[in-house]
Amino acid sequence: MKPVKVGICGLGTVGGGTFNVLKRNADEIARRAGRKIVVEEIGARRENPAIDTKGTQMTSDVFAVATNPEIDIVVELIGGYDVALDLVMTAIENGKHVVTANKALIAEHGNEIFEAAQKKNVMVAFEAGVAGGIPIIKAIREGLSANRINWLAGIINGTGNFILTEMKEKGRDFDDVLKEAQELGYAEADPTFDVEGIDAAHKLTILSSIAFGIPLQFNKAYTEGISKITSEDVQYAEELGYRIKHLGISRRTDHGVELRVHPALIPEQALLANVNGVMNAVVVDGDAVGQTLYYGAGAGAEPTASAVVADLIDVVRTLTADRDNRVPHLAFHPGSLYDTPIAAIEQTETACYLRLSASEQPGTLAAITSILGEQGINIEAIIQKETSEQQVPVIILTQKVQEQKMNDAITAIEALAEINGSVTRIRVEQL
Amino acid sequence: MKPVKVGICGLGTVGGGTFNVLKRNADEIARRAGRKIVVEEIGARRENPAIDTKGTQMTSDVFAVATNPEIDIVVELIGGYDVALDLVMTAIENGKHVVTANKALIAEHGNEIFEAAQKKNVMVAFEAGVAGGIPIIKAIREGLSANRINWLAGIINGTGNFILTEMKEKGRDFDDVLKEAQELGYAEADPTFDVEGIDAAHKLTILSSIAFGIPLQFNKAYTEGISKITSEDVQYAEELGYRIKHLGISRRTDHGVELRVHPALIPEQALLANVNGVMNAVVVDGDAVGQTLYYGAGAGAEPTASAVVADLIDVVRTLTADRDNRVPHLAFHPGSLYDTPIAAIEQTETACYLRLSASEQPGTLAAITSILGEQGINIEAIIQKETSEQQVPVIILTQKVQEQKMNDAITAIEALAEINGSVTRIRVEQL
Repeated sequence: MKPVKVGICGLGTVGGGTFNVLKRNADEIARRAGRKIVVEEIGARRENPAIDTKGTQMTSDVFAVATNPEIDIVVELIGGYDVALDLVMTAIENGKHVVTANKALIAEHGNEIFEAAQKKNVMVAFEAGVAGGIPIIKAIREGLSANRINWLAGIINGTGNFILTEMKEKGRDFDDVLKEAQELGYAEADPTFDVEGIDAAHKLTILSSIAFGIPLQFNKAYTEGISKITSEDVQYAEELGYRIKHLGISRRTDHGVELRVHPALIPEQALLANVNGVMNAVVVDGDAVGQTLYYGAGAGAEPTASAVVADLIDVVRTLTADRDNRVPHLAFHPGSLYDTPIAAIEQTETACYLRLSASEQPGTLAAITSILGEQGINIEAIIQKETSEQQVPVIILTQKVQEQKMNDAITAIEALAEINGSVTRIRVEQL
Repeated sequence: MKPVKVGICGLGTVGGGTFNVLKRNADEIARRAGRKIVVEEIGARRENPAIDTKGTQMTSDVFAVATNPEIDIVVELIGGYDVALDLVMTAIENGKHVVTANKALIAEHGNEIFEAAQKKNVMVAFEAGVAGGIPIIKAIREGLSANRINWLAGIINGTGNFILTEMKEKGRDFDDVLKEAQELGYAEADPTFDVEGIDAAHKLTILSSIAFGIPLQFNKAYTEGISKITSEDVQYAEELGYRIKHLGISRRTDHGVELRVHPALIPEQALLANVNGVMNAVVVDGDAVGQTLYYGAGAGAEPTASAVVADLIDVVRTLTADRDNRVPHLAFHPGSLYDTPIAAIEQTETACYLRLSASEQPGTLAAITSILGEQGINIEAIIQKETSEQQVPVIILTQKVQEQKMNDAITAIEALAEINGSVTRIRVEQL
């Protein structure tokens, strides 16, 4: 059968990894795909000295790749929004299938991209955008297609998980570990995307859409980072039998689909609690299958390339399939999406961990518990730490409560004269 | 688009679950598959009082389903070999696609079944045959298609894992837990298939073929059960920082593909060590992606139905695709399989746990260690248990050694006058 010709745009970490995997495993890939997959051209602003591209046509103009009539599939690995969007739309316009690892692009512009792709009868594959080498898009979109999905929860940012793991295992502070992560290359110079949860929210938006059959709605995601988690929180959580993880959670509820990224206490014996370092994992709960979990490297050159190349092989397999029988971009066929709304964070119900600093006066605890009682919040556990100072840390574990009620309670507690500073609130997920 | 018509053969646990999932989730399934999937006829020797089949055509002759001209896809859920093989071949002969959960049938007759299917241009899907609802066939065959797989290891028999978990958590004996498992319906009246590893070897044979691109060779699998594991072994393993799990392991080596099912000590912090009860999990190590893990329910009506229905949707999607662009049955295209041999168990290299009962005489340990030394076997740890009896348990953890050398050493140790009874050997896998 005729080889399929691919153009790779971007020759950074993932682009280089993709080129190398396609070259190294060419024989196995051809035996699986039923034909050869050949890199016809690489578009990159600069060479990557670590990658031996000898013999492959190079251009510094990625748009030349997107319009090259020889090329069947364009692989977008340049990242970012503007040029990437332009490039992907140009490729689609020129009748090319697209494979991308760009979660930001898909989460924020996926709806328009898929609409254009549908019109031109081409596919846009994005497995590499979520959880690196873990085939989580495929698992949800195809492997669990019999299920009505109830919820999913995942550790989908390796940088954040590395930081929380180090804080837990070595008692280190957030800032200290972040600096090391930056030196190791796990975190960017501007770590906002990773530690404030934006990257995780991009990925969660995609997972949520394919799980629940709803359009991508990144702008409605609730996003909270881990930069305010202290080593004391990690320590107290451990005393209570929990670990703190930065989770993306999407859940079907009566008031809509929850879409939220925030730190959470999870039971220490949960498999997710034991996913450490830069690794990723996602739990999916379906009505027929129950809970399944998917674990692996969430980033890195070759793990991400593994997903890019798997997508290439998938696209190659469906080149001759008619559009209506392909796996739909968002798992459900266009026109068959649901209009379930995204639930407001204030409607979420979770148990909570609260940490506050209170003056050691008689009546302080009574004042706090009375405020919680007024909001109908039941207390699961309360720990008042011994200290030589006048201000003592108080840790409270509540039962499930609606977010809005907890917000009101926290505002009232913070207004108490006996309370010093603000109340730390971390949600608790039993999974 | 025209609905696809399905015939279900067998209305036991999985057949009933499949019927129920197709009915309950009909709307979501149609939105995903792009058309309705309708159960046209059910073939079953007897009714299942738990399943409401009102309105669906029933027959007691499963072959009537396989030859029904109205039916596009036959779902084989009767189990066993003889009738099932006949049924599947009849369905193929009649141009039907087949979905089955029958791991024994595929592991032992898959090569001929796939050859017949290839000739008739139909698909035989078998995701439900391995690890129940976990989409592990899809993950390896499609999700990791970019990789040269190095090895895979899994807990793929829920009954065995339930027994070992109970032995570990409650210090119970094998026989005692097995009896409970039979009462709970986790284990059959004749538990041989589960506890002696035959069921796991069927599943491992399938995983190994799609991972390494080799024909199914169940008859070459090495199979060892868990019935000789004692609660003492579980306890000693724990003292050494390990847990005992019944693993299926397939690994690419210089002398061929290893294909072996046996109990193994694995480090307690490994995720696989924390897969408990009836749950299943498989770790796959690929050259690009590194290690990924897949976890979920390995059996049960609806988890298995989840995989059966996902296969149905996959088959529906490729109904109009040409044969050469479908996912090949064994991941690699027919004619592109490798002829890598299955390695003999004697060539396997693993570390070992040995437990033996020795008389408390001076020189006994020296005699044992001298035998190990003669075979070039290095000792990692040795524990001699205090006891009031004359015979004391000795536990030895060795470094990696070739199976044949360990066999020779064990024979020599058992011949020592100071040794009482046989030596227990459990392999150690670091994963």
